[in-house]
Amino acid sequence: MAFGGLATATLRGRWAEVLVGQQPDLRVNADRINAHLTALAEFGKNPQGGVSRVAYSEFDKAARVVVMDWMRAAKLAPTIDYAGNIIGRRAGQDASLKPLLFGSHIDSVPEGGNFDGNVGSTAAIEVAQTLAEKNLTTRHPIEVVVWQNEEGGLYGSRAVSGQLTPAELKNVSNSGKTIEQGIAFIGGDVAKLDQVRRKKGDIAGYFELHIEQGGTLEKEKIDIGVVEGIVGIKQWNVTVTGFQNHAGTTAMDNRHDALLAAAKFIQMVNRVVTSIPGRQVGTVGKIQAFPGAPNVIPGKVTCTLELRDLDDEKVDTIYEQIGKETKAIGDQNGTEFAFAELHANIAAPSDARMRALIAEAAKGLALSSKVMPSGAGHDAQAMAQLGPMGMIFIPSIGGISHSPKEYSTPKDISNGANVLLRAVLAADRALA
Amino acid sequence: MAFGGLATATLRGRWAEVLVGQQPDLRVNADRINAHLTALAEFGKNPQGGVSRVAYSEFDKAARVVVMDWMRAAKLAPTIDYAGNIIGRRAGQDASLKPLLFGSHIDSVPEGGNFDGNVGSTAAIEVAQTLAEKNLTTRHPIEVVVWQNEEGGLYGSRAVSGQLTPAELKNVSNSGKTIEQGIAFIGGDVAKLDQVRRKKGDIAGYFELHIEQGGTLEKEKIDIGVVEGIVGIKQWNVTVTGFQNHAGTTAMDNRHDALLAAAKFIQMVNRVVTSIPGRQVGTVGKIQAFPGAPNVIPGKVTCTLELRDLDDEKVDTIYEQIGKETKAIGDQNGTEFAFAELHANIAAPSDARMRALIAEAAKGLALSSKVMPSGAGHDAQAMAQLGPMGMIFIPSIGGISHSPKEYSTPKDISNGANVLLRAVLAADRALA
Repeated sequence: MAFGGLATATLRGRWAEVLVGQQPDLRVNADRINAHLTALAEFGKNPQGGVSRVAYSEFDKAARVVVMDWMRAAKLAPTIDYAGNIIGRRAGQDASLKPLLFGSHIDSVPEGGNFDGNVGSTAAIEVAQTLAEKNLTTRHPIEVVVWQNEEGGLYGSRAVSGQLTPAELKNVSNSGKTIEQGIAFIGGDVAKLDQVRRKKGDIAGYFELHIEQGGTLEKEKIDIGVVEGIVGIKQWNVTVTGFQNHAGTTAMDNRHDALLAAAKFIQMVNRVVTSIPGRQVGTVGKIQAFPGAPNVIPGKVTCTLELRDLDDEKVDTIYEQIGKETKAIGDQNGTEFAFAELHANIAAPSDARMRALIAEAAKGLALSSKVMPSGAGHDAQAMAQLGPMGMIFIPSIGGISHSPKEYSTPKDISNGANVLLRAVLAADRALA
Repeated sequence: MAFGGLATATLRGRWAEVLVGQQPDLRVNADRINAHLTALAEFGKNPQGGVSRVAYSEFDKAARVVVMDWMRAAKLAPTIDYAGNIIGRRAGQDASLKPLLFGSHIDSVPEGGNFDGNVGSTAAIEVAQTLAEKNLTTRHPIEVVVWQNEEGGLYGSRAVSGQLTPAELKNVSNSGKTIEQGIAFIGGDVAKLDQVRRKKGDIAGYFELHIEQGGTLEKEKIDIGVVEGIVGIKQWNVTVTGFQNHAGTTAMDNRHDALLAAAKFIQMVNRVVTSIPGRQVGTVGKIQAFPGAPNVIPGKVTCTLELRDLDDEKVDTIYEQIGKETKAIGDQNGTEFAFAELHANIAAPSDARMRALIAEAAKGLALSSKVMPSGAGHDAQAMAQLGPMGMIFIPSIGGISHSPKEYSTPKDISNGANVLLRAVLAADRALA
């Protein structure tokens, strides 16, 4: 076939037009996406709304079974790879071509919402089902992927990109299981992880539709975000060691209170991160004091630290500054800080050709779009290591996510899915 | 009988001499106390030493069974009262007299030690066993008491003194059970709590032997502390409400981070408590951030606040100041603080006659002693509401307690038990 490797955005746009021109009214079934989102919302549903469907939980496992059923209905042949990812594959016209991937995830943060990951996953399956129902066969094989444990740190996708280290398999996930135990729980096999690794060039490309999770699109009344790049993320487990003692008999000036030191640390992180201009963010999201009783001075505190920016060097500079100031905090009351890196995702720019295809697809649907960064990490950043990556954002109402209050309108969701459909078809023509 | 109600310390001392004069070499069996302490250390033993035998845990329940066996061996008839306290009673010579109580507790804090409560409980049983073995019958009925859930807030003893409120029964203990569930679990019955209440004058007196939990006795090389009074303790559950959001997409200046506000609160508590002279202490010992994930800005934090001083008014003044400053912290980033009182123990002076009897007993054993406050709360403070109360301290090595490193020497423990024995016998003669 002679459609691959076109040189300019103009040409690529023309190819997409040719294809969509054959099916000018081709649209996904918006009702089916919404029905699937509604069904997913039942797995790990919280009384106060949203879901707690953390990776490797019973809810996660049950939802994955349903998702695989939907893939079968969409004429995708779903399998679970050794990393625990669900991959629904359909052959293309040209078996010599690398597969074109698109998908997202269905695990949530604790007390998360119903749209983060779910929109992209259900829309990806819907795109495949639409193609199947119209008897459209792409040139490339397509693989609809539901990545495992995105929220814990892109574990599934980084296993495929080769960025997951063996040490990380011992990390404890929000389910209470280690990554290793979790992967076994959902049907993977860590002993064979090297078999899921793909090399640069092993994929034709990757698309992911996702909610913005910020408030820019809604505020600016724009339909579609074309992601220019995904921030790098580094996470650490921080341990503060003091001395456990009786809260009644130990004088204030004789304490080595690990929680007091941790409190100073949390404030310092906020100060250091906001002390320089830019969009970088820093968060302490999790904390525990040991032994954890009202009448005992904490002898140990564990907490997390997370830093993000589009510029990986800036993250390193901030972390260095935090480390310096931490030492001074510990010296104040005889406590010690230790940092253990949980994992690091390097910042990932999207592919210029993929951005053009997305923008063109939006234009073809008479939708407004803008190029913007992603402050959130996504499996797409692991896929960017393997081939051209493109991400499509739709508005998040109020910019709220990782919360039961997370919401995107059915209209925005179907817009996003239709952009994904067109971008996939255009890329199928345009990419090698 | 004509021995009761003597007017001066000199006379009381003389009566004690008369009695102990009949048994000048009367001593407890130190080996048996140590054997019992060693046995107790098995219930809830931590890998790193010490025990986690929080009230209402399986370990607590199992240890109570063993303690009741020891009571039976000491010719005490143990029963569990409706509040869940273990009371081992033996009749005295004069059935018209009120009982003389002594005892302590065997529950621990999470990751606690082997001496806090256990020393006083095993020594109290040992005193009874020594009397039984010597065929000595006191004038008063004696009741050896092992109070339930001392560490959680003197729940057992305050049920008896009538200070426990119905609302407190809903508090969640460190076992995960509510107080109500816990009491049922260990054999009590909250529906009949009013039947365990005693009025002022219902007891002849109360003694408690305890480790100091501070470092004064060891530092000053003194054998026995004669407690002048027990600090008042107030505890609150503090809830900080912010707004849960995505840690990557929410700009630093757009956050309502409940953990950042809690961190400022913890530092402020430390500052306010140390801003005025005195021995008052303030502690935040427990904290949890919700939902509690590295990549989510905490929307809610719960923590505890505890304040202690011998002067209840000082505690109230400090709490008032903390409340004022809390408001300002919340206003800084749009978070809100709410305080729910967990419980309050009012400060309790010991009885001058009981202090004299303890000092006299120490002197008779050629032990040094000093009058000192108790920074820790004890069941003795509830008993002080019902009759004359006296407390005996022995040294804590390094002043460490509520820790696996808590330690008192066998010699100090047998010294304390012998002082308790003599003080009990002297009080039996001296008190009405």
